[in-house]
Amino acid sequence: MEKRVGVLLSGCGVFDGSEIHEAVLTLLALDRHDAHIVCAAPDIPQMHVVNHMTTEETGDARNVLIESARIARGRIIDLKDLAIDHIDALILPGGYGAVKNLSDFAVKGPQAGIQADVIRILQQMLAAGKPIGAICIAPAVLVRALAMHSPEVTIGEDSETAAAIETMGGRHVPCRVDQIHVDARLKIVTTPSYMVASRIKDVAAGIEKLVREVLSLVDQTNENL
Amino acid sequence: MEKRVGVLLSGCGVFDGSEIHEAVLTLLALDRHDAHIVCAAPDIPQMHVVNHMTTEETGDARNVLIESARIARGRIIDLKDLAIDHIDALILPGGYGAVKNLSDFAVKGPQAGIQADVIRILQQMLAAGKPIGAICIAPAVLVRALAMHSPEVTIGEDSETAAAIETMGGRHVPCRVDQIHVDARLKIVTTPSYMVASRIKDVAAGIEKLVREVLSLVDQTNENL
Repeated sequence: MEKRVGVLLSGCGVFDGSEIHEAVLTLLALDRHDAHIVCAAPDIPQMHVVNHMTTEETGDARNVLIESARIARGRIIDLKDLAIDHIDALILPGGYGAVKNLSDFAVKGPQAGIQADVIRILQQMLAAGKPIGAICIAPAVLVRALAMHSPEVTIGEDSETAAAIETMGGRHVPCRVDQIHVDARLKIVTTPSYMVASRIKDVAAGIEKLVREVLSLVDQTNENL
Repeated sequence: MEKRVGVLLSGCGVFDGSEIHEAVLTLLALDRHDAHIVCAAPDIPQMHVVNHMTTEETGDARNVLIESARIARGRIIDLKDLAIDHIDALILPGGYGAVKNLSDFAVKGPQAGIQADVIRILQQMLAAGKPIGAICIAPAVLVRALAMHSPEVTIGEDSETAAAIETMGGRHVPCRVDQIHVDARLKIVTTPSYMVASRIKDVAAGIEKLVREVLSLVDQTNENL
């Protein structure tokens, strides 16, 4: 049976949106497993627009959904229209968009707020026993949204972010760049990608493992129904 | 010896810049071969900014180099500073940016003008016997810039674009989505990607073959020196 996997985007570009390599390599790994992909993003303004040559804010305004559509080649839906009945699993690529647009963790750290539809979909996925994958810095969003369940995640080795994750109620486990961490109890899979990586091939290796594990957890979920 | 490969970008998004999947999969394939990657783009305004949800022009202004920097995670140079001494090969991903920003083929067809630095780098690469790869619609730019040499390329099966390529002085050879065409005389390698593809895994397959062939042609070039 075809597996349907949501990919939650947050813009288009590492410094103000989804990390593009992580997002594209997630789509590639899913397609190689013949998964049906449903890209989604919230229809909200970006926190910042950043010039990716200088890393300076430009003062311009852009919309998260419309910029995310660049990565999805136009095939994307508003996150508010994404029902968990539509998908068997959900994956969040990283990039500053996860902590500027899906949440404001980049500004507020452990006291971050999470965008309402992001909280809703994450809590519903967990309640339905459906697997969630989170890449790079996105596990911080997931921990903040699901703190009451004490999720176990990795963001690699960054001690400050790891401490923030523990402060929010999660448990942080160090992980090598091309490996994954699996919270089997909550069906949460995480990989460090560009939190650690300096090369795209290492990002690809971690994301391939993450996608394989997420899809394997979908199979386990279906067997238990 | 490490091979140095230029990747010529044209913005960030299929409808007004570089096709993001093609660009990222080119970077991945190059990194897996341990190539040193040099991303470059012209420092010029985009012809259009397109809303990728509606495919409508927005009327906004964006800069090709600054938007391309999103795909390159900030590690990119102005095309005018790219000397052929810096690179052993050059690859052009596709997307409308190739035919709107690197050239105006999207508007003028076979009478297209080519951006001055794009003509310069392509003609210098050819004169130096260094291989060039072109993906999706980018072969049209290459044919227009190198018409006097009658390059043999593929853009897949699209009969209108194929006819335009022949009008400009090139020769068009049909090609399957996950295959490549090699003009061994001019060291030009082309693959259809999203001119034909509906799935990212087919794009990846074609680009992996293209990158392998381009790097193999670099080896041949070095052996003949």
